[in-house]
Amino acid sequence: MTHTLDEALTLTPGANAGESTARTHPAWANMVGPFGGTTAAVALRAVLDHPEAQGRPAALTVNFAAPIADGEYTLIAESARTNRSNQHWVVRGVQDGATVFTATVLLASGRETFADTEATMPDVPKPADIAPVTRDVPLKWLSQYEMRFVEGMPPATAEQATDSSLTRLWSRFSAERPWDYEGLACTCDMFFPRIFARVGSRTAAGTVSYTVYFHSTPEELAAQGPFVLGEAQGGRFESGLFDQTARLWSEAGTLLATTHQLVYFK
Amino acid sequence: MTHTLDEALTLTPGANAGESTARTHPAWANMVGPFGGTTAAVALRAVLDHPEAQGRPAALTVNFAAPIADGEYTLIAESARTNRSNQHWVVRGVQDGATVFTATVLLASGRETFADTEATMPDVPKPADIAPVTRDVPLKWLSQYEMRFVEGMPPATAEQATDSSLTRLWSRFSAERPWDYEGLACTCDMFFPRIFARVGSRTAAGTVSYTVYFHSTPEELAAQGPFVLGEAQGGRFESGLFDQTARLWSEAGTLLATTHQLVYFK
Repeated sequence: MTHTLDEALTLTPGANAGESTARTHPAWANMVGPFGGTTAAVALRAVLDHPEAQGRPAALTVNFAAPIADGEYTLIAESARTNRSNQHWVVRGVQDGATVFTATVLLASGRETFADTEATMPDVPKPADIAPVTRDVPLKWLSQYEMRFVEGMPPATAEQATDSSLTRLWSRFSAERPWDYEGLACTCDMFFPRIFARVGSRTAAGTVSYTVYFHSTPEELAAQGPFVLGEAQGGRFESGLFDQTARLWSEAGTLLATTHQLVYFK
Repeated sequence: MTHTLDEALTLTPGANAGESTARTHPAWANMVGPFGGTTAAVALRAVLDHPEAQGRPAALTVNFAAPIADGEYTLIAESARTNRSNQHWVVRGVQDGATVFTATVLLASGRETFADTEATMPDVPKPADIAPVTRDVPLKWLSQYEMRFVEGMPPATAEQATDSSLTRLWSRFSAERPWDYEGLACTCDMFFPRIFARVGSRTAAGTVSYTVYFHSTPEELAAQGPFVLGEAQGGRFESGLFDQTARLWSEAGTLLATTHQLVYFK
């Protein structure tokens, strides 16, 4: 059986190279439109599908300009520059003649040189020692993941508002799926909006700018177990926007990705 | 006297709205081409100069595709979508017919709502209590800043390599200049490449993807003293790329900006 994410990532090639059609997937529906992580993965896939693509994903930035309505939308991926060691792309998502997102993608060819992970993986219990969230999930896409919170569950009431938006959780696809860059691009968006933790209620919120730096080598991804550890925290909430800094770690302690977003809230 | 950054930010309007010409400034020269912070500020200015621009800068991502040669280059700023509370832009820098950078800019209209700075300003000595760097600086742009390091000076020899790339420094423009978003866009790139700290030598390195989230309100910027406190650290060095996460604080303890970059190194 094809995984729902792979279904969402199946693009229909258009008349010109770099043009393709995507279709929102009901299994990945969010409050309004599709889960942003899926859209980011689709934008990345549009580049990787291009016959001129070379190198592995290194950086991805998606600016969400408008909600995507259920149904089809067009992707236009343009190569902006190809160098010896990297390649720059600009992607646009268009629906009903209007831009719904813009994105830039950086592909890079790896080079053997100094390597080290300076960031420290949080010392947390193993996923087997934590119970998965079983309460009813209000959004379709959430059931695509099995989440096991180490700390910083989404609050249920205003009384549960805290001074810290730090969340740590183990997460895996509910239906098994090998890890790849599209899977990381999607999963880096799995954190509930940090504003929920601070105010204790589910105010309207949506990511406007989303960046993923992919640290993982293809070999690491291939050897990767089902769970990833995610750690996310907000920095400043001001004028209806906040930033989130987050990391994704493998069970074996590999830093797979660093991710940031700027989120609008009411 | 006009500040060198304002000279670098002076764009000549082109024939069509959104098109303009910039010129590299000798005072902001880097090892190869202009200092990336200046280019980022120019990309932002290209948007802010557009007659349709509305809102204040919220997010900026610049992907540096190729070195910019000394001289003129063309900027093309296109509005991708205007919503009630935000506006999305795509910018391209072109020199000799080839793309030298791509950028996306998010402008937002502020909204009064929950506000808090969750990040903690490091407890460091005041700028007046730290001596500025006086040693010869090898790059032109460096003399545009006066830097006072709290910790994590650039190493001078391989023996000074450390396990941590954490740097904290106070910095101000050498020639006084009021703070604005272009000044932040430029200054968020002031940190020396984190790889230097780790290997102790100045290997070839260059930012490929650069993101700034602007937290500061216009009122805060107007009230801002000359010094900003910068704090930067690398996350993972792998396959010739590393990420940097950094913050800029005001003397009064305001979180002005959060910034990230992915850097290529040899």
